[in-house]
Amino acid sequence: MSPLSATLPKARLETLVDGIFAIAMTILVLEVKVPELAQRRDGAELLHALGRLAPTLGAYFFSFGMLGLFWHWHHRLAAKLSRVDLPLLAVSFAFLALVSFFPFVAALLGRYPANPVALGVYLPCIGLILGSQVAFFALARRRGLLLPDLPPEEVRAAHQRNIQSLAIFSFACLPSALRFGPLWVALALASGALCLLWKRRAGRVPA
Amino acid sequence: MSPLSATLPKARLETLVDGIFAIAMTILVLEVKVPELAQRRDGAELLHALGRLAPTLGAYFFSFGMLGLFWHWHHRLAAKLSRVDLPLLAVSFAFLALVSFFPFVAALLGRYPANPVALGVYLPCIGLILGSQVAFFALARRRGLLLPDLPPEEVRAAHQRNIQSLAIFSFACLPSALRFGPLWVALALASGALCLLWKRRAGRVPA
Amino acid sequence: MSPLSATLPKARLETLVDGIFAIAMTILVLEVKVPELAQRRDGAELLHALGRLAPTLGAYFFSFGMLGLFWHWHHRLAAKLSRVDLPLLAVSFAFLALVSFFPFVAALLGRYPANPVALGVYLPCIGLILGSQVAFFALARRRGLLLPDLPPEEVRAAHQRNIQSLAIFSFACLPSALRFGPLWVALALASGALCLLWKRRAGRVPA
Amino acid sequence: MSPLSATLPKARLETLVDGIFAIAMTILVLEVKVPELAQRRDGAELLHALGRLAPTLGAYFFSFGMLGLFWHWHHRLAAKLSRVDLPLLAVSFAFLALVSFFPFVAALLGRYPANPVALGVYLPCIGLILGSQVAFFALARRRGLLLPDLPPEEVRAAHQRNIQSLAIFSFACLPSALRFGPLWVALALASGALCLLWKRRAGRVPA
Repeated sequence: MSPLSATLPKARLETLVDGIFAIAMTILVLEVKVPELAQRRDGAELLHALGRLAPTLGAYFFSFGMLGLFWHWHHRLAAKLSRVDLPLLAVSFAFLALVSFFPFVAALLGRYPANPVALGVYLPCIGLILGSQVAFFALARRRGLLLPDLPPEEVRAAHQRNIQSLAIFSFACLPSALRFGPLWVALALASGALCLLWKRRAGRVPA
Repeated sequence: MSPLSATLPKARLETLVDGIFAIAMTILVLEVKVPELAQRRDGAELLHALGRLAPTLGAYFFSFGMLGLFWHWHHRLAAKLSRVDLPLLAVSFAFLALVSFFPFVAALLGRYPANPVALGVYLPCIGLILGSQVAFFALARRRGLLLPDLPPEEVRAAHQRNIQSLAIFSFACLPSALRFGPLWVALALASGALCLLWKRRAGRVPA
Repeated sequence: MSPLSATLPKARLETLVDGIFAIAMTILVLEVKVPELAQRRDGAELLHALGRLAPTLGAYFFSFGMLGLFWHWHHRLAAKLSRVDLPLLAVSFAFLALVSFFPFVAALLGRYPANPVALGVYLPCIGLILGSQVAFFALARRRGLLLPDLPPEEVRAAHQRNIQSLAIFSFACLPSALRFGPLWVALALASGALCLLWKRRAGRVPA
Repeated sequence: MSPLSATLPKARLETLVDGIFAIAMTILVLEVKVPELAQRRDGAELLHALGRLAPTLGAYFFSFGMLGLFWHWHHRLAAKLSRVDLPLLAVSFAFLALVSFFPFVAALLGRYPANPVALGVYLPCIGLILGSQVAFFALARRRGLLLPDLPPEEVRAAHQRNIQSLAIFSFACLPSALRFGPLWVALALASGALCLLWKRRAGRVPA
């Protein structure tokens, strides 16, 4: 038995994924700091301080929703797996390392919402998470780790949906990329276009 | 298959819910900070410092109990589900985002127990959590996601109990609302009355 | 169906217990702070700073072991349950609130190892956790929630072992109680003696 | 029934292990602190501040990967167990206490990458984790806790692989040991050599 083909029951990975998502989602709130007040009983001052927290609160709820989406997407893909081998585990850990890194990136954007670099870190981090999801499923498909009774059209459709999400995300980054200069616009356009080409090719290749 | 009807095994959501509750409950204690002492071996000073922590400690144990109640309530409702679809997942994530936000709100009240705004954030947060629970079950019922063999009276009774909890909570907020002015009293009264009306109507509609 | 007899599948409570223990055990390490150095590359300074962390490190590993013991003890008792009802859930939440509070108490002792009040908070907190375990099993037994096929001698022996642990703990606190004065010595003695009487009585009562 | 032979269902330990790993992996990111900026909207300043975080980020992703490896290794060994008794539980808790301690050690190395003592704490901590894994499996084997239908050659091969990892790690520490002086070089060499001898002996002993 080659070490690469050693498999791990899928259930263990799923529990770890759920745990890491639960913690990453809950850790997001640690960045929302209780404000310091000069007058402890002054309602107006607390209200004002909470008002200044608004971007942090917005980043909290938005990032919580993003993690929720990633969690749901991951489990829809993982439900199609029959088992997990070492290369797939490596991709899963890259995905989890990014998910667990996400609270830092969300805190950065919540603290400096008007700083272009904060957004310039947040968006690529989401892009990498999306990309690792696409790679996760593409690898599982290539290594024959999917459930044997899945209809090939369903597998192909899931793969195409994954690539399409990455394309949509690339094009959605365009308005932000405009703020960073023409190089970033070109990057977003190229990434979106490549995804569209890949999706098209994936539609023609037999599953 | 419409994407909205795509279902997720209920077990995955339950694990995430347990994880988020476990962390939110444990994170509550992070707000209880070890006090700084001038004399490290002075027992009287530490005792005095711990005495000043009393409202934080009170908020900790009270909020832990509240989260325990929400957890128990959620699982009693979720036990009646057969499966989870996307709209129900969205409501679940709104519920979880509020649960995971609760430690911040509890920290706020523990730090500023005498500040009216702290209470004015804590109570609506609980109200929103209760409301998202009511919405969770009402949506599951409407979308036909409940276990097929549940007796209709049991479903209706659970739904009515949910609404009743919201009504009780609204009326229980009245003394606090008095401190915030007539607008808030009217709000609490209207919310409670609407719930009572809704509960009555829910009792007449066939399940 | 009376609301008090409404039962919850045991598995859900077990997952929450595992989650809260895992987090409480891991949160212990957050109190071990990376020291600030004047000379970042100075090995001797870092070694010296780590030396000053020794009591915190000791408290970390000791408290981790204590939580491990509580976890093991809880699961040995919970394995004898067939189901969980509301009063038992309330006792479980009191137990969990204390477990989740334990990192604060451990941090207090790690920061002020020579302060008598720190120990005077740490020991009663352990006592309360042990007491809530005894109450958990005694309540489950009285409310008929144990597995039906358990031999009565085994149930009685488990109950007696629980009380005995509390007695041992009370007597083990005697040296520390000496530091706090005669009142605390009397308290530890009385608590230990009461437990021994209770254990004896529990041995005579039929299960 | 001797208390030492009292067994715990393996599933409970596995859930705790997954929980502690998930939290330790996610807590790693807490050390990556959002930098303080003089000019909140200054992209260049934020970029520069993130650049200074590079060693922390490197330590984060490297340590995440290390924990991922430990997690995978633990589950491959635990999959061969049929049950868990008290001595094995004690070794598991030593392993878990080190895993949960790892975020502190990783934070130390991330903060002081050029300080020899930081590395001199990081490497032995990994060594202890590896050692506790070897002890975990060796103990399970000696106490007859492995699945009864495992072929003896597979058990022996797993045991030898464990020892070999420890040997490889010891020799991999040699370049770092050079920085600490001849005593550490001798220690690393002796540890590696002992492991090789042990591995050889393990190959000859019948399983």
